[in-house]
Amino acid sequence: MPQIRLALAQLNVTVGDIAGNADTIVRWVRHAAEQGAHVVAFPEMALTGYPVEDLALRSSFVEASRTAIVDLAKRLAGEGHGDVAVIVGYLDKAEGAVDRVGRPKGSPYDAAAVIWGGEVVTRSAKHHLPNYGVFDEFRYFVPGETLPVVRIHGVDIAVAVCEDLWQDGGPVAAARAAGAGLLLTINASPYELNKDDSRLELVTRRAREAMCPLAYVNLVGGQDELVFDGDSIVVDEQGDVLARAPQFSEGLLTLDLDLASGAHGQDHYAGIRIDRSVISETPLARYAPVPAGLAPRLEDEAEIYTAIVTGLRDYVHKNGFSSVVIGLSGGIDSALTAAIACDALGAENVNGISNPSRYSSEHSKDDAAELARRTGLNYRVIAIEPMVSAFLGNVELTGVAEENLQARIRGMLWMGVANQENHLVLAAGNKSELAVGYSTMYGDAVGAFAPLKDVPKTYVWRLARWRNQVARDMGETPPIPESSIVKPPSAELRPGQLDTDSLPPYDLLDDILDDYVEQDAGSGELIAAGFEPALVERVIRMVDAAEYKRRQYPPGPKISFKAFGRDRRLPITNGWRETSPAGTPPAAQPPVPEKVAPPGEAPRT
Amino acid sequence: MPQIRLALAQLNVTVGDIAGNADTIVRWVRHAAEQGAHVVAFPEMALTGYPVEDLALRSSFVEASRTAIVDLAKRLAGEGHGDVAVIVGYLDKAEGAVDRVGRPKGSPYDAAAVIWGGEVVTRSAKHHLPNYGVFDEFRYFVPGETLPVVRIHGVDIAVAVCEDLWQDGGPVAAARAAGAGLLLTINASPYELNKDDSRLELVTRRAREAMCPLAYVNLVGGQDELVFDGDSIVVDEQGDVLARAPQFSEGLLTLDLDLASGAHGQDHYAGIRIDRSVISETPLARYAPVPAGLAPRLEDEAEIYTAIVTGLRDYVHKNGFSSVVIGLSGGIDSALTAAIACDALGAENVNGISNPSRYSSEHSKDDAAELARRTGLNYRVIAIEPMVSAFLGNVELTGVAEENLQARIRGMLWMGVANQENHLVLAAGNKSELAVGYSTMYGDAVGAFAPLKDVPKTYVWRLARWRNQVARDMGETPPIPESSIVKPPSAELRPGQLDTDSLPPYDLLDDILDDYVEQDAGSGELIAAGFEPALVERVIRMVDAAEYKRRQYPPGPKISFKAFGRDRRLPITNGWRETSPAGTPPAAQPPVPEKVAPPGEAPRT
Repeated sequence: MPQIRLALAQLNVTVGDIAGNADTIVRWVRHAAEQGAHVVAFPEMALTGYPVEDLALRSSFVEASRTAIVDLAKRLAGEGHGDVAVIVGYLDKAEGAVDRVGRPKGSPYDAAAVIWGGEVVTRSAKHHLPNYGVFDEFRYFVPGETLPVVRIHGVDIAVAVCEDLWQDGGPVAAARAAGAGLLLTINASPYELNKDDSRLELVTRRAREAMCPLAYVNLVGGQDELVFDGDSIVVDEQGDVLARAPQFSEGLLTLDLDLASGAHGQDHYAGIRIDRSVISETPLARYAPVPAGLAPRLEDEAEIYTAIVTGLRDYVHKNGFSSVVIGLSGGIDSALTAAIACDALGAENVNGISNPSRYSSEHSKDDAAELARRTGLNYRVIAIEPMVSAFLGNVELTGVAEENLQARIRGMLWMGVANQENHLVLAAGNKSELAVGYSTMYGDAVGAFAPLKDVPKTYVWRLARWRNQVARDMGETPPIPESSIVKPPSAELRPGQLDTDSLPPYDLLDDILDDYVEQDAGSGELIAAGFEPALVERVIRMVDAAEYKRRQYPPGPKISFKAFGRDRRLPITNGWRETSPAGTPPAAQPPVPEKVAPPGEAPRT
Repeated sequence: MPQIRLALAQLNVTVGDIAGNADTIVRWVRHAAEQGAHVVAFPEMALTGYPVEDLALRSSFVEASRTAIVDLAKRLAGEGHGDVAVIVGYLDKAEGAVDRVGRPKGSPYDAAAVIWGGEVVTRSAKHHLPNYGVFDEFRYFVPGETLPVVRIHGVDIAVAVCEDLWQDGGPVAAARAAGAGLLLTINASPYELNKDDSRLELVTRRAREAMCPLAYVNLVGGQDELVFDGDSIVVDEQGDVLARAPQFSEGLLTLDLDLASGAHGQDHYAGIRIDRSVISETPLARYAPVPAGLAPRLEDEAEIYTAIVTGLRDYVHKNGFSSVVIGLSGGIDSALTAAIACDALGAENVNGISNPSRYSSEHSKDDAAELARRTGLNYRVIAIEPMVSAFLGNVELTGVAEENLQARIRGMLWMGVANQENHLVLAAGNKSELAVGYSTMYGDAVGAFAPLKDVPKTYVWRLARWRNQVARDMGETPPIPESSIVKPPSAELRPGQLDTDSLPPYDLLDDILDDYVEQDAGSGELIAAGFEPALVERVIRMVDAAEYKRRQYPPGPKISFKAFGRDRRLPITNGWRETSPAGTPPAAQPPVPEKVAPPGEAPRT
């Protein structure tokens, strides 16, 4: 069987920075060529970054991508790498009229190019366009109509793009019909917990269906609310893993494959035209293979923690910043956020500010200082009492309005310091709080980025304990004070306040939220699952009523199946009440729906 | 020719409030029956409101809609209206497996029901699913596969849904092939400037294609960022207008039509099955027709102003509030926002707060007070100096950070008063400011709703002058002080500051923004259009760099072809620079893209 040395380039690009990404691609082709690779594959949209969103609709951007792919081919040949076959994802446009979804000539393609000998040998595009969850690809792209099969050193390599692997039929079946010796898929597959497991299961199954080895290359790095986890994989035709790249790190996964010789199969399959090209017919002379890497998987906590570190680091750096401000309350959310920021950016780039009020306990102040001491972050204390007095002397604010005032003065101080010293502010809120609206808009909710936005409170504790254990295992000081982990959560906006005054216990709350938010269960299903009806109604009303707060919340990395943001799109103005089992109409309601704000938090503002 | 009295119910529903909307529908059927209508049509998704967004993915909600449509049929018959044919848009689900887009059985339908005699006579669904602009319908719905044709009093009425009218082929052509005597379309078509003109042109053309009269019924009212303008229309088979409803107001458009007798046409057309039902074969005895209404169109300023008033009123009321807080600077944006709020909610429900600083000019304070006097809104003054001093005494803030501090203290005061007294805060920023990021996050950008969010600055002045002229024409006091209209705009955050210190003149800025934001033109096209290259680059960089601010901005009503928000989706982290003509790659750029904040505004925070 012919041999091929394949390198999968699992790399971190920046959306929109076509020139910079092209430089990165050239650099990695160079590395791969040094390692003797014959074929180098880059992820989906590696040239443009992913997702480009409405940049795909701007013709100047589409043309820049089309020009850049041709330039890339020339540049690689100019550097002496014309003999390496390079597969790159980029943005192209349909040349012909496209009638499957009725969009006109010139509509964008989520495209793949095969580059060799200074030329773009063949171009193709993704067939299946995801339009669920965080994806809006029907908005941007028209589906591809061909499956490219390129003969390289006597092997027929079929190229498919991301979702084409996840959907039945289409390109996978076409690769089998075409008699491909290798199915290569280029991907931009965002992280969520346990995605690596479903990805492995998928790759295994599709390799068996395609009846040939399958290589899967994915992006790494953060892009706004998405984190790409890499996890590039190669399996044989039985689906057994031959090589697997580490999660979240940039690098080449290089291995040697013995592949079936090219044999002319079908030229069409179920409406897909097999688009054959020949780079070289002659198999390579036999050579000694290099050993393939098989990186171990991360455990759940490590996976989530690394995803957040990656998402935060890239958000800060790719936007031209290097440092952050975090308000430190002594509580677990800000402590974990600070520990993550120290790991992502270095403690010297993390500025913690403690803003005690008359309601702050001694242990809170001590815990904030202790966190700073343990991590080495820059620490300062600005008491809020003078500002609170100035406001209260000039406007009447009582009850929740006064509680919010304290939170907002803190937010203003963080923003002021950030503006003065050129940092980004991090919001420390977690997913459970965001779900029920237990936060103050323009107060603790201020920030450029919210690392824990998609982390339920019960996971906040798990991650904190895990991070401390990692430190202990490495003989380092655990970053998070034990007291911050074990004490009962409190906003400390009034004397003796506890989160449980306003909310159910977090383990119970998170169970309900998991069903209601992530699984879209109705109240009937929740009650059938054993939750107490009054509690179900109360939690659902809190979640529904807090939609307006979520709209103005900073972005944060998606780590779950369904994050708030573009993953879950609900109206603010919403009269639907989940008050009765599924299948029966809701009870009569007043024509003007009421918004119920959970006690202890900001009423609708 | 058989006669039919048709009533189009142009009504204002609330998303999610199925029970309340059903009550509204019953009430309007009752009115229509009192007027002798034989057929009453309600807009697309009238039972659920539109758009329901991810509520469509929750099975409890889908089932509630399905149950409610059956209950509605029974209830109408129970009230003695079983002899009126009622067409209602609602949410249903596909019974069979749907393979056109590969989604499973049970996927949601954007559906239409024909109700008669206590039963749902026939159900159908929208074929063409818009997935551009503000629409994400591929996310929610599977396409319909039938065209219902219902024989009522001897006339064959075909029913189509919204986008089916906008796209060539499909239901319109099928209605012709089926030999329909009337094509009835139910719609949820959001307002944008001049939409009424394109709608009329469309309806005219489609009636000619269908070779029969066409009736078009649309929602009115605000739903988050969308405003529905009604503008229901009936045209004859030549496309000549027979009746037209007023824009933005709820009501029945009732008229008598002489329609062709039902004649059996084709049963299939281009993959669409014609689904025929018979309610009654016998034409009605001739009767004297009622005159049809033909409401005049609003001029541009009136149209925009009314759209904003409608959007604001419904946002406030449908969310259970009745009153608002607005910070009054003496400038034109806050003055126009206040005038709109007074028209939408009544001056007694509008609370203006003036927050002078040491940099506020005398005329600003006078103009704010004069606005309050003219409109009769509740007015108070809270000087910010004590709070500014308290902050500056405790943290070092200079330059832009100090400017932002003033804006943020104002925002906190508005939020405090709103929390204390249960109002919503309105943000007064306009589209030009939002485009270039000329605002302070958590400062002047705080708010539940931003009425001018989609109004360019040059239109702000036009609307102000128009509103004052309307007052003069009616012998009332013009609400907006002339001085607020004519003085040069200033943020008054430092001595002698003018907007033109940081921004190009607004007429020039708005021209560039119109091309770049609304038309998605690249810099090459802008330069070719005659704008100065350095200015083009500067404006584009400001717009691109301000994306993070727009993400946390309050919702506001869409009035233009492309509003910020879901109409225009761009990444925050974005290395693309429009620095060169379309078709050539951008110049080399640093690997970490820089964000450039326009002078005089908040740096990235």
